[in-house]
Amino acid sequence: MSPSPSSLSPRRVAIVGATGAVGREMVNVLHQRGFPVAELALFASERSAGRVLETPFGEKTLVAFDADVVKGYDIVLLAVSGEFAKQHAPTLASAGAIVIDNSSAFRYDPEIPLIVPEINADALGSSKLIANPNCTTAILVLALGPLHRAFGLKRVIVSTYQATSGAGAEGMAELEEQTRNQLAGRPVTNSVFRHPIPFNVIPQIDAFQENGYTKEEMKVTWESRKILGIPDLLASCTAVRIPTYRAHSESVTVETIRPVTAEAARAVLAEAAGVKLTDDPANGVYPMPLNATGEYDVEVGRIRANPVFGDNGLDFFVCGDQLLKGAALNAVQIAELTL
Amino acid sequence: MSPSPSSLSPRRVAIVGATGAVGREMVNVLHQRGFPVAELALFASERSAGRVLETPFGEKTLVAFDADVVKGYDIVLLAVSGEFAKQHAPTLASAGAIVIDNSSAFRYDPEIPLIVPEINADALGSSKLIANPNCTTAILVLALGPLHRAFGLKRVIVSTYQATSGAGAEGMAELEEQTRNQLAGRPVTNSVFRHPIPFNVIPQIDAFQENGYTKEEMKVTWESRKILGIPDLLASCTAVRIPTYRAHSESVTVETIRPVTAEAARAVLAEAAGVKLTDDPANGVYPMPLNATGEYDVEVGRIRANPVFGDNGLDFFVCGDQLLKGAALNAVQIAELTL
Repeated sequence: MSPSPSSLSPRRVAIVGATGAVGREMVNVLHQRGFPVAELALFASERSAGRVLETPFGEKTLVAFDADVVKGYDIVLLAVSGEFAKQHAPTLASAGAIVIDNSSAFRYDPEIPLIVPEINADALGSSKLIANPNCTTAILVLALGPLHRAFGLKRVIVSTYQATSGAGAEGMAELEEQTRNQLAGRPVTNSVFRHPIPFNVIPQIDAFQENGYTKEEMKVTWESRKILGIPDLLASCTAVRIPTYRAHSESVTVETIRPVTAEAARAVLAEAAGVKLTDDPANGVYPMPLNATGEYDVEVGRIRANPVFGDNGLDFFVCGDQLLKGAALNAVQIAELTL
Repeated sequence: MSPSPSSLSPRRVAIVGATGAVGREMVNVLHQRGFPVAELALFASERSAGRVLETPFGEKTLVAFDADVVKGYDIVLLAVSGEFAKQHAPTLASAGAIVIDNSSAFRYDPEIPLIVPEINADALGSSKLIANPNCTTAILVLALGPLHRAFGLKRVIVSTYQATSGAGAEGMAELEEQTRNQLAGRPVTNSVFRHPIPFNVIPQIDAFQENGYTKEEMKVTWESRKILGIPDLLASCTAVRIPTYRAHSESVTVETIRPVTAEAARAVLAEAAGVKLTDDPANGVYPMPLNATGEYDVEVGRIRANPVFGDNGLDFFVCGDQLLKGAALNAVQIAELTL
């Protein structure tokens, strides 16, 4: 047994980007999990500086980001853009802080660990800078990792049902406000999303690449390979935005190297860390945003053998909170690993 | 050139189940396409009989279903339950009427043609009873058929984003009403769907089978094989209800027998009957319910080579109106074939 976080010497923790949807959840998760916080500082843009936030740690005044101040903290959680992370994360880490970055800036750097603690905690090493994966990937690999150990993964085909929280608090607000507009017969507009989101489906998340896939889709391939330690994994994704708030769903088909059955896969996933087996379809029990929202564990269900790959095919459906396992929870779990 | 419908001798047409979402669209589509209607009669349950409907053919009084009356019509469009169809369709057809049934009752009977006119009009034969396919399948095969002719299909893996109209007018009404409730902070309930639908994802449509797939999912496999004429096609589906109104989206991955490229697939689909190539991602053009709703053609886009299957993999996204190509339009197109 590893010691519980609270028995360890407390750390001075900084959250940069504390006003965003992910930053706010980071504060909540640190508190809920009893992370040993000696001091918590919340950094934001100049614009937000001076605002007071109610947090489980009491009232906190937002401070304008200053690298010279932030680098003095033991642990720095970055919930900022990739550009901002690229500019500041290496400096903060070389000054001695442990920096956990939620952006994609360093995820593909072979020197930087990309960690989902349940799956590849052993890859942490001694790097001071650690990358937190893409939300869709973090949720997905909780199921893929144990299945790979048990059966070997050859091919992975994913279609996603991604919530508006992936575009931050503004994304969720646009969903709510524009849905109200549509129901009231008022004009529906869009600024966060490329098209109106109410009662619609948008098969684009992030920018398109040369190969026709979006960056979001390629992240799932690239990051799954790195986290699972399968550099040649055949994986593809279709990433789709739908009108939900903050839990991502994913429809997954895998071809395994060794034969697999639904029963054997279910037994593996029932024991998997971070997974809540949610698979009693006869009673209407399967993963859904309605239940997965606000939960740490990722729901996995609809597990069934897929004969498209003979005895080596498996289908399942996962649903996880995009702001928790998809972002803030995983970042705090990484911080716990460094204690 | 085949003669335009309106140049042919008019037919006496009966719609049974005329008050439902599909039945109402059948009336509209008959009119929009200039189907040669000599007389249109709308049949419904005892409960609805006597009600007057405004239609493009003028005011129509709903008549209680009476097999002895209905069998006298030239063409009978059934928008009723499978049970009702099983009970009445064979009698109506043996009396001489051409019966086009929208239920699943006869789709798997080898003696009954299952028709999507753009794909397998030649399978019509001389049967008086003709089955109209499942909505998801009808939309899907418009893309699969041409791709099969060009490249050969080996495997098809589909994940769906299905609209509430699949559960009829009541499904759409439940989405709207319960979304209003949720936004107003009132309790959200469900009666049409097994779980609340607003801002949720429900990975169940129809009942579960022994193999863990739902009947809806198996319909896509069974019906695609029959319509495409590939009895051994390896096909699987994950059917998911999402909070949209009346256009189904589908994320599709195929493995082809002969090598395929995105460019070659795009060229094939650009010429495909019933397909609107909707594939200019750089300009934000791809299939979406927002645009596909109310349209006859099925949008196909996000076409890209999927390296998971080497040189033989292809991904694409389709979106089609569930009540039109998924039901009423296809039924009327079948009726046109019989002229």
